[in-house]
Amino acid sequence: NNISLFICNNMDPYLNEQAPEYWKVREWLSGFSGSNGLLAVTENTAALWSDSRYVLQAQLETKGKEILFFNESLPDSPNLVQWIKGLRLANKSVIALDGRCFNISFVNSLEAFCKENGFSTELRSNPAEELWKKRPSVTFSTIYLMPPEYTGEPSSQKILSIRKKMNEQNADGLIVTALDDIAWCFNLRGNDALYSPIANACAYISEKEAVIFIHTSKATPELLTYLHNEGIIVADYDKWDKFISSLSPDLKICIDPFKCNAYFNSLISSKYKIFASSPIELLKSVKNSTEIEYERKVMPYDGAALCRLFYWIEKELSEGHTLYESQVADKIAEIRSVHPAYLSESFAAIVGYGANGAIVHYHPEKGKDRILEKDSLLLIDTGAHYIHGTTDITRTIALGSPTKDMCRDFTLVLKGHIALANVIFPEGTRGSQLDVLARQFLWKECMGYLHGTGHGIGYVLNVHEGPQNIRLEENPTVLLPGMLLSNEPGYYREGYYGIRCENTILVKKYRETENGNFLCFDTLSLYPFDLNLIDSTLLSEKERNWLNNYHKRVYEELSPLLNTEERMWLEEKTQPLP
Amino acid sequence: NNISLFICNNMDPYLNEQAPEYWKVREWLSGFSGSNGLLAVTENTAALWSDSRYVLQAQLETKGKEILFFNESLPDSPNLVQWIKGLRLANKSVIALDGRCFNISFVNSLEAFCKENGFSTELRSNPAEELWKKRPSVTFSTIYLMPPEYTGEPSSQKILSIRKKMNEQNADGLIVTALDDIAWCFNLRGNDALYSPIANACAYISEKEAVIFIHTSKATPELLTYLHNEGIIVADYDKWDKFISSLSPDLKICIDPFKCNAYFNSLISSKYKIFASSPIELLKSVKNSTEIEYERKVMPYDGAALCRLFYWIEKELSEGHTLYESQVADKIAEIRSVHPAYLSESFAAIVGYGANGAIVHYHPEKGKDRILEKDSLLLIDTGAHYIHGTTDITRTIALGSPTKDMCRDFTLVLKGHIALANVIFPEGTRGSQLDVLARQFLWKECMGYLHGTGHGIGYVLNVHEGPQNIRLEENPTVLLPGMLLSNEPGYYREGYYGIRCENTILVKKYRETENGNFLCFDTLSLYPFDLNLIDSTLLSEKERNWLNNYHKRVYEELSPLLNTEERMWLEEKTQPLP
Repeated sequence: NNISLFICNNMDPYLNEQAPEYWKVREWLSGFSGSNGLLAVTENTAALWSDSRYVLQAQLETKGKEILFFNESLPDSPNLVQWIKGLRLANKSVIALDGRCFNISFVNSLEAFCKENGFSTELRSNPAEELWKKRPSVTFSTIYLMPPEYTGEPSSQKILSIRKKMNEQNADGLIVTALDDIAWCFNLRGNDALYSPIANACAYISEKEAVIFIHTSKATPELLTYLHNEGIIVADYDKWDKFISSLSPDLKICIDPFKCNAYFNSLISSKYKIFASSPIELLKSVKNSTEIEYERKVMPYDGAALCRLFYWIEKELSEGHTLYESQVADKIAEIRSVHPAYLSESFAAIVGYGANGAIVHYHPEKGKDRILEKDSLLLIDTGAHYIHGTTDITRTIALGSPTKDMCRDFTLVLKGHIALANVIFPEGTRGSQLDVLARQFLWKECMGYLHGTGHGIGYVLNVHEGPQNIRLEENPTVLLPGMLLSNEPGYYREGYYGIRCENTILVKKYRETENGNFLCFDTLSLYPFDLNLIDSTLLSEKERNWLNNYHKRVYEELSPLLNTEERMWLEEKTQPLP
Repeated sequence: NNISLFICNNMDPYLNEQAPEYWKVREWLSGFSGSNGLLAVTENTAALWSDSRYVLQAQLETKGKEILFFNESLPDSPNLVQWIKGLRLANKSVIALDGRCFNISFVNSLEAFCKENGFSTELRSNPAEELWKKRPSVTFSTIYLMPPEYTGEPSSQKILSIRKKMNEQNADGLIVTALDDIAWCFNLRGNDALYSPIANACAYISEKEAVIFIHTSKATPELLTYLHNEGIIVADYDKWDKFISSLSPDLKICIDPFKCNAYFNSLISSKYKIFASSPIELLKSVKNSTEIEYERKVMPYDGAALCRLFYWIEKELSEGHTLYESQVADKIAEIRSVHPAYLSESFAAIVGYGANGAIVHYHPEKGKDRILEKDSLLLIDTGAHYIHGTTDITRTIALGSPTKDMCRDFTLVLKGHIALANVIFPEGTRGSQLDVLARQFLWKECMGYLHGTGHGIGYVLNVHEGPQNIRLEENPTVLLPGMLLSNEPGYYREGYYGIRCENTILVKKYRETENGNFLCFDTLSLYPFDLNLIDSTLLSEKERNWLNNYHKRVYEELSPLLNTEERMWLEEKTQPLP
C-alpha cells in the first residue's frame, strides 16, 4: 500500500484504559502485552516504546522479533518523532495508522511533524483487518439502566448542566466518546470493558437535542424507556459515523482532543471546532449526595470481604498450606462476589509477595507467580465495583516477623498517609499542593516513591478518573467537595519488598469561617493497618490518636458483618496502640 | 492629538520594581502613589486599577478627581480591556501609551484587542513630556565595579554561560534590559534605583560580542578597565536605540517579553524574534560558592544590628519614652549603616504596631504613623544591601504581655516556618510543592495568609528576584542548590495585629543516595524569635529542638559582635525552651 511506516497501539476507538482483545493490534504484531506501548514498523525495522515497568517483559515477549525497545521513562530515550527523523525516510513517504485508535492530539502532532518533513499521513490503515487471521471478535454486552435511586440525578438534569457549560464555551454541539462520560450522562451501565461497567456508545449533545448511539438490540427495555422519558433520542450505533459527518460545518463543535479519536474528528466538518476538555469530566468528578451516601454503603461490604481474605491467608499459612499470589488474587474476587451488589473487580488485583511487591503494577499470573513465605511483606491492592459504589484499597502485611527496617519503612509511609488524611485546606486548593504531605517523612530519610499519591475514583465507572489527582506534577484542577480520590503513598525496596497504604477518601466541607471556607478529607475505606508493622516510637500522639480512632471505627462498622471467629480476629487487629 | 484613551503607570524603561520620580506619570496625573497601579484616561472619564492593599489610599489620594477605582484582587472586577469595551469607543479610536513604560506582553495583548475591535494603538505618546511642568529630573549615579573577590566569577565567564544557553535557544543575539541582569552579568553596581544597587544600562550579547550601553561619564575608571579586560565593548547609553535599530533583520534575537519594554522591541526589526525568559535570570538565581560565602558573612552584622535595634526599643519604652513607628524604621537604617560594608536598605522598612502590622505592605510615614504602646504586637520587616550580601528578615515581638490568642497565632506561624526550614526534598522539587508545609498548621485552625511563603532574593541586587519562589501558585522553576529565598509565613488579624516570621534561607545539597540526590534549606538569618510569644505546648519535641539549636547558634554567632549589656540581653532572648 505504499506505506513507509505503520504505527499501532492497543487502544480501542473509545481510548479506554482497558481495550477488548479485538483491538490489541500492537500485541498481535509484536507479542508485547503490556498496558502501555506504541509500536512503529517499517519495511526493515521496528521499534517499541513503553515505560520502566515493562523493560523485562517486553524483552521476553518480543524475543527473536528484532524489535528495538525504548524506555520512555528515561529522559534521554528518543521518542517516536526523533526515531523517525533518524530513519531518513524519502520525501513523500507515507506514515500510516488507524485513526480510530489514537487521540486527536497525538495525530495532530504527528501530522504537523509530517508536514514539516515532507511526509504524508494515512489515517485509515490497519493491516490487522486483512492479515490478523485469528482476530478475536468483538462482543457487546447488555446495556442496562443504573437504578435511579443510586444516581441521584436524572439524565435530563445532567444534560442541562452540560448545556450550561457548553454555553460558557460558546459551543453548539458536544461530541462525547469517552465511555464513562456517556455512562454517567445517560445513567447507563454495561460490561464492554474489562474492570469498568461501561458500554460501547457515542453521543452528541446540542442545545436542542441529546442523541445516544448504542447497539440498541443490547439495551434493556427498561433503559430504552428511561432514555425516552428523559427526552433522549436513541439511535443505532452504526449511524454514528454518518451522523457526525452530516453535522453542519457552521456549528461550533466541542471535542476533547485527548478523549476523542482522530478518525471521528476527521468526519466532522465543523469550521469552528473547540478543542477543549469535555465539560462532563468535571461534572462527573463531583459526586452528588446520593452517590456519596451509596459509596459509603459499599465500604463495610468491602472491608468485611478483606477481613475474610486476610483471615483466610493467615489461617492457610498457619496450617502449612502452600499459597500462590494468584490464588490470593482469585480469592478476593471470589469473596467479594458473594455480595449481591457486586459487579466486578475494579482493576487487575495486585498481590505481590516480597520482591514482587516492589513492582508497582505487578499482577500475579498463575504459573509465573510466587509462593507466599513467612519472611517478607505481602502487598495487596484490589478493588471492586458494586452496583452502587466503587472501591480501591491497598494493605501491606508482614508474613512472619518483620525486620526493624520493614517497620521503619512502613511507619514512614503510614505517617504520610495519615498527614494527608488529616489535612484541612481552604477552597481553591489543588491536589499538587497537598502531595508533599504524604511524602515528607520519607523524604526526610532520603526515601520516596515515584508514583502519584492519589488518583480520582469514578462512581461505578473507571477506578482511575480525572480531572482531579494528588501528584508531584502540577494539575490546575481544584479539589471540590464530593470528589473521590485515593490516598496511597508507598515505598519500594527493589528486590526486597513493596509497601503501600491506600484508602479511598472523599473531599468534604470542613467549616465556613470569616477566613473563607475550609475543606477536609473523609476516609471511606475500612480495614485496619497491620499493627505488627508499626514502629509506634515514630508516631506522634496525634498520629497515634488518628490510627486508634480509625481502627475503632473499622471495628464498629465491620464487626456486625462478621462471624464470631472473624470478629475476634478483627478485634485483635484493631487493638489501640498504647 | 486625536487620542481617545491614554494609559499610563509608574514604570521606567527598565520596568524596575522601584522607578525614579521622573517616571511616575500615573502619580503625577492621578495623585495615587501606590506601588502598583494602572491609570486610563479618556476625554470625560478616568479609571485606576490597583489591588486590595490600596483601596483606602487610592480613595484619599485621588479625592475630588472623579477617578473610578477597580480592585484587581476581586475576581469580578472588570479589567482594563473589559472596561474599554464598556466605553463603546468609536471605530478607529486611538489608544495611546508610552511604550517605554510597558512590557512587550502587555502591549501585545492590548494591540490584539485593538485590532479585534477596530481601534489602533499609538506607542510613543506621553503628555507628561509637554505638560508636566515641575517634572523631576533624572540623575545618574556613579557606576562602579563590584569587587571581583565578592562576585566569584568574572564577567567574561558569565557571558560564556549565557552564550551556551543562547545556543540551546538557537539565538544569535540577546537583548538585556533588566538592570539586575546587567549588573550581575557585567559585575557592576550603581545607585540608580531606590533600594537596589543597580545602574541604568542596556546590553546586547551575541556569539562574537558583548556590548554594554552606560552613561560612560558615570563609570569609574576601574570599571571601564575591568570591562575592557574582560573583552566587553562599552558604548555610550545614547547609542542604544540606534544600535538595536540597526541589528540585521536576519538575526534571531532573544527578548524577554516581561522584562523588555515595548518601545525597545519596536526598534528591533528581526524577523525571527525569540520571546522567552532571559537565560540570565536562572544563571543569576543560582549563587556561586563565593557569593554564598559572603552572603553568610553579612548575617552576623545584620543580626547584631537587629539586637541593637530591639534592645534600643525595649530600653526606650521601659524608660517611658514615646516611640513612633517611623522612628524605629529610621533607627534600623541608622544602626545598620554604621557597618563599613553597608550600602542601603533593601526595601522600605515595614514597622507596624498593632493593627498596622496587619497591613501587609505597611510603611510608616512620619506624621501619619502610630506611637508604640504596650498592649499589642510589633512587626518589623527590614533588610539591607551590603557590598557583599543582601538581607531580608522579619520579626514580630510582643510589647507588654501578649494574650493567649497572640501566642497561639504566633506559634502556629512559627511551626510553619520551622516545617519549611526543616524540609528535605529530592532534586527536581518546585517551590509550590513545599508551600503547604508553612501553611498546614494555620489551615488546621481555619486560618491562613494570602501572600507567598517565599520569594527569591538577589545577591546585592533586587531583594525580590525570580525565577524561584515558594507560593500557592504553580511555578515550574525547580529549586536548585545555591538559590536564596525567604521563608516568611504570617498571620494577620485585621484591625488587631500582624505576625510574620521571616528568615533568608539557602537551598543546598543534603545527601546523595541510591534514591537520588536530596536537597535542604540552610537558614542564614540570625536573630531570635520572641520567646514570650511561643506557646510551647503547641510545639513538638523536634520543633523545640530546632528552635533551641537555632537560638544557640544565634547567640554564638552574634555575641562576639555585641557589648556586654547587649550580650547579656541576647543571652536572655536565646534561652532554651524547657
